[in-house]
Amino acid sequence: MPFIDLNSDVGESMGGRNMGDDAAILTSVSSANIACGFHAGDPSVIAQTCRDAAKLGITIGAHVGYHDLAGFGRRFLDCSPTELADDVLYQLGALEAMARAAGARIQYVKPHGALYNAIVHHEGHAQAVIDAIRAFGSDLPVLLLPGSIALVKAEAAGLRPVTEAFADRNYNPDGTLVSRREANALLHDPETVTKNMIRLATEKTIVAIDGSVIPMDAESICVHGDTAGAVAMAAAVRSGLRSAGVAIKSFV
Amino acid sequence: MPFIDLNSDVGESMGGRNMGDDAAILTSVSSANIACGFHAGDPSVIAQTCRDAAKLGITIGAHVGYHDLAGFGRRFLDCSPTELADDVLYQLGALEAMARAAGARIQYVKPHGALYNAIVHHEGHAQAVIDAIRAFGSDLPVLLLPGSIALVKAEAAGLRPVTEAFADRNYNPDGTLVSRREANALLHDPETVTKNMIRLATEKTIVAIDGSVIPMDAESICVHGDTAGAVAMAAAVRSGLRSAGVAIKSFV
Amino acid sequence: MPFIDLNSDVGESMGGRNMGDDAAILTSVSSANIACGFHAGDPSVIAQTCRDAAKLGITIGAHVGYHDLAGFGRRFLDCSPTELADDVLYQLGALEAMARAAGARIQYVKPHGALYNAIVHHEGHAQAVIDAIRAFGSDLPVLLLPGSIALVKAEAAGLRPVTEAFADRNYNPDGTLVSRREANALLHDPETVTKNMIRLATEKTIVAIDGSVIPMDAESICVHGDTAGAVAMAAAVRSGLRSAGVAIKSFV
Amino acid sequence: MPFIDLNSDVGESMGGRNMGDDAAILTSVSSANIACGFHAGDPSVIAQTCRDAAKLGITIGAHVGYHDLAGFGRRFLDCSPTELADDVLYQLGALEAMARAAGARIQYVKPHGALYNAIVHHEGHAQAVIDAIRAFGSDLPVLLLPGSIALVKAEAAGLRPVTEAFADRNYNPDGTLVSRREANALLHDPETVTKNMIRLATEKTIVAIDGSVIPMDAESICVHGDTAGAVAMAAAVRSGLRSAGVAIKSFV
Repeated sequence: MPFIDLNSDVGESMGGRNMGDDAAILTSVSSANIACGFHAGDPSVIAQTCRDAAKLGITIGAHVGYHDLAGFGRRFLDCSPTELADDVLYQLGALEAMARAAGARIQYVKPHGALYNAIVHHEGHAQAVIDAIRAFGSDLPVLLLPGSIALVKAEAAGLRPVTEAFADRNYNPDGTLVSRREANALLHDPETVTKNMIRLATEKTIVAIDGSVIPMDAESICVHGDTAGAVAMAAAVRSGLRSAGVAIKSFV
Repeated sequence: MPFIDLNSDVGESMGGRNMGDDAAILTSVSSANIACGFHAGDPSVIAQTCRDAAKLGITIGAHVGYHDLAGFGRRFLDCSPTELADDVLYQLGALEAMARAAGARIQYVKPHGALYNAIVHHEGHAQAVIDAIRAFGSDLPVLLLPGSIALVKAEAAGLRPVTEAFADRNYNPDGTLVSRREANALLHDPETVTKNMIRLATEKTIVAIDGSVIPMDAESICVHGDTAGAVAMAAAVRSGLRSAGVAIKSFV
Repeated sequence: MPFIDLNSDVGESMGGRNMGDDAAILTSVSSANIACGFHAGDPSVIAQTCRDAAKLGITIGAHVGYHDLAGFGRRFLDCSPTELADDVLYQLGALEAMARAAGARIQYVKPHGALYNAIVHHEGHAQAVIDAIRAFGSDLPVLLLPGSIALVKAEAAGLRPVTEAFADRNYNPDGTLVSRREANALLHDPETVTKNMIRLATEKTIVAIDGSVIPMDAESICVHGDTAGAVAMAAAVRSGLRSAGVAIKSFV
Repeated sequence: MPFIDLNSDVGESMGGRNMGDDAAILTSVSSANIACGFHAGDPSVIAQTCRDAAKLGITIGAHVGYHDLAGFGRRFLDCSPTELADDVLYQLGALEAMARAAGARIQYVKPHGALYNAIVHHEGHAQAVIDAIRAFGSDLPVLLLPGSIALVKAEAAGLRPVTEAFADRNYNPDGTLVSRREANALLHDPETVTKNMIRLATEKTIVAIDGSVIPMDAESICVHGDTAGAVAMAAAVRSGLRSAGVAIKSFV
């Protein structure tokens, strides 16, 4: 039976500022990217999210980001590789304590926002993330964008690189994402998205923006939970995959 | 051979704002209370401090505080016990990752500043600190002020309570500290302080402000490193204790 | 024609973490309590909120709070009166620059959350808020809970004290709020709430929890915009007041 | 009588973490670059620094920086120009309130750290700083590095661009600073530095690293107060200039 992982960002609320519908999205995914307090998430939100994920049997991933609460980690921060490695290690330790208290563990790492994008090409920051995971004393897999330089560095360091596809994004024929600056960057129809993700899970291909069928070797699908529409789409993707005989389960 | 522990607060610098002379004070103490980022300390400072302590064989303690960088943790923050327990657990996890990367471990917990003072009498916050240590999955000793309600709660939870004396503070005949609002709250003469600390280590007594000799059963002595005078006094205390045949070593 | 002010908290989003539906609530109120960055709000959110308020002709108030982003300003922070006065003055200056850039000005001050509640009885913090407003070089009115000690201090300092009622809260027969710990602290029926607020605006009385009619001399009504239900209730109150011949306008 | 301005960074302490010796450096300078809370400085430190500067008749400048307390504003932050303009405007407003409460005003703006360096060439961020000053409703001069693109944008916006020299830095024959990565980037001899600054003030030339005399048209000299050596050098420069008949006074 074919299977694939569904992952989503959770634990991003802070001090009463709710962000997204974690309770809803957690019913659809197999992996939870939990914010660690540097771009979002306060300790009580993180602790509760760990408990919720653990209770549902969802795999916990560390969603590590730049130290930029004001910008939600969406802005590149030109810190030194040493500073970044220390920041990531700090976040891993903090989340691990929360996860363990919930009877779980961190089982993978997914960089967030600007960090996720930076380490597609920024060698120093890519290596810093990998170094932090190694310093954490673990061999946690790293969830990344296909083509990311950090995938190469993860493998070189003995970590398992895992790639993901984005359910609601359009792809160019060369397998890169259609830029968000383009009008058709996003897909809004749950049916189209679901079909495409079934294709991904069963044939390891997707339909690109020009209609061509291209290879896409992803072990996980990223879905969103920040709007009611996003939550509904995630549920549709999950349901569609299962109806098509695809199991939803973690890549770890 | 009698022995006693010397502890001091370190790792409080942040983003280039240096605080105290950590390198100097670490040559005198056996235990390092390392800030965890909530009242002071950034990840790179914490990481470096852990490495420095580990290299010198100094025992690492988690100096956990209220989430108040702007106030250096010196102001009571009326958070809920749950919030506080989550904040403390987060700090313990973060520091533990840094300590492990340096080849060490957290071996005790010392609450900082306003938290240290609050849990002398604030039952909810005292219990929250103990709960966090238990949730951390450990039985770390807790370093506290004699008379603190948190000592009772630590013991009830199966943790080892450890009390400390303050080298440079004057004591009332009943064993409480002379308030900082009093002119003679602080002792400035290294020789007087050293004599008093030798008495503490060898006879478990100290001389109170009225000249009376009172019992003081402390396993550790707190010294400071934030001024040149404080560093010199710590060195004098260490040297005096050793000359008097008292070994300086951790209580763990 | 009788009139009353409707005020609501806005500008509390931060770095992409949306909080409440500001656009919706701004269509109902005459006064906007804009967060100043210490408990919520980042500069770009604040700037946009000022422009939105200015465009709609809504009076801008400074929603000043304790320096506690992690706790959304909902936790008492035992800072010194000097620290608090400086924190409030800083917030006033920051918001004023944003308001002026939008062609408006701060026209009143409303303390937020734990600060609002603390200065009902905390003399030092109450005086600090008043001192900050005076140091700001202004005679801005202060919006407060009836019975607050800060009202007395405002008046003594030559500032205009303004009191408010809470649309969706039940009142005890003595005019105090039914505690949130009680099951019936909140009112959920827009029709009941609206009737009560018309009574307030036209007769200066409200119906208390025991059915008795009590005097309530409030110049403003606080409504909420953080949930869809709250926004709908605010709209109902506004509409009901206007149908009853009550104008909605600022108290300044 | 020739004259020149001496400026230094002050107000960078926070929550008890002292940074530099403000009291000492303020006795030497004519202009104080006061931190505004985004890279350093808390409201009480800022307020006290404004009072100290005002008392000594020192001109107050707004030392605005990226929103990065953890990194002391020394790391480029890739925020949008709108975010940056809002951040700068917020800082200007906050400092202005503090300065006014001290009986003074902001009289110039000097970007800090990574922002200072970024706007030498980053057009978007350079324009954002200028836009914020304009939005502040003022025509404050901007203190910058010679050659900075922000100088051009300041002038285009009707603001007065002011350039500064660095007392303790070596210059290349083309007038650029010797990189800090070079061994001889810094000058340590107060006598050499003083001579060079007298030359700057009286002849508008300095001696470059190769011994050649090059033109340097700076209206201000930046000195430091973060170490005892820096404070002594600032005092030497001031004293030397005055002995050579050069008055120390603000460029405004």
